[in-house]
Amino acid sequence: MHTTTLKLVTIISDRLLATDVVSKICELGARGYTISDAQGQGARGLQPLDWEGANSRIEAVVSPEVAERIISHLAEKYFKHHGMIAFVHDVEVVRGDRYM
Amino acid sequence: MHTTTLKLVTIISDRLLATDVVSKICELGARGYTISDAQGQGARGLQPLDWEGANSRIEAVVSPEVAERIISHLAEKYFKHHGMIAFVHDVEVVRGDRYM
Amino acid sequence: MHTTTLKLVTIISDRLLATDVVSKICELGARGYTISDAQGQGARGLQPLDWEGANSRIEAVVSPEVAERIISHLAEKYFKHHGMIAFVHDVEVVRGDRYM
Repeated sequence: MHTTTLKLVTIISDRLLATDVVSKICELGARGYTISDAQGQGARGLQPLDWEGANSRIEAVVSPEVAERIISHLAEKYFKHHGMIAFVHDVEVVRGDRYM
Repeated sequence: MHTTTLKLVTIISDRLLATDVVSKICELGARGYTISDAQGQGARGLQPLDWEGANSRIEAVVSPEVAERIISHLAEKYFKHHGMIAFVHDVEVVRGDRYM
Repeated sequence: MHTTTLKLVTIISDRLLATDVVSKICELGARGYTISDAQGQGARGLQPLDWEGANSRIEAVVSPEVAERIISHLAEKYFKHHGMIAFVHDVEVVRGDRYM
């Protein structure tokens, strides 16, 4: 089975920000995303007041370039003042052209 | 702590297909799985009509051989006509024999 | 964009254990965590009686040392007698100091 290595971007954000975030990641090149409910808790410093409570988990499989763009955007716009974390790792997919 | 490298297979599928999918992945060698609710959205081409709406996120930790079998099966049976994505990556586990 | 490689620890546990688990992982050094609902099913051996049903998915981005401590603790305390799995993999994050 031929596979392609792409990036999975996972964003855990305040649920109120989720609509903005998914709109932006599509604008930056994501061709789809998955969203689910989560609860986040900060312990000892992860901005507990902003961060605790209703969160959304947003995931998108994207090219390395789009991942970079998304993470740069989030870091600049949200990381300082909002409860949000994001992480990226490689994933193998079949029919990688669907994501690019 | 001794760890083993296995594969995490993640499948995001239309919720109506979830029962079939988990039954099949167990038949193909997965010894357990986790399922949770998610919403999927396709942007610009990921088959939006099929894909949007109620999805299931199915995860299984399996051997590389079982991962290959699962992905091949899904690609052949579902990827063309159904809203489904799947991706695979390495994970470290303790007591890896439990998954094989 | 400068990124740091950290570890994502994912724990799928019986929901009744989730409060204990998150309390312990914070004690062991996690600075935050995300928790969401999931259903787990064991097939052919993953302790089906304990494992099936309401589960929690707990995730934390931590340093390699904290990941090791968490996994060792879980393996020793829970893996033998409880329905729980855990896996670890590398993730790239921005502003890695927030997680350590």
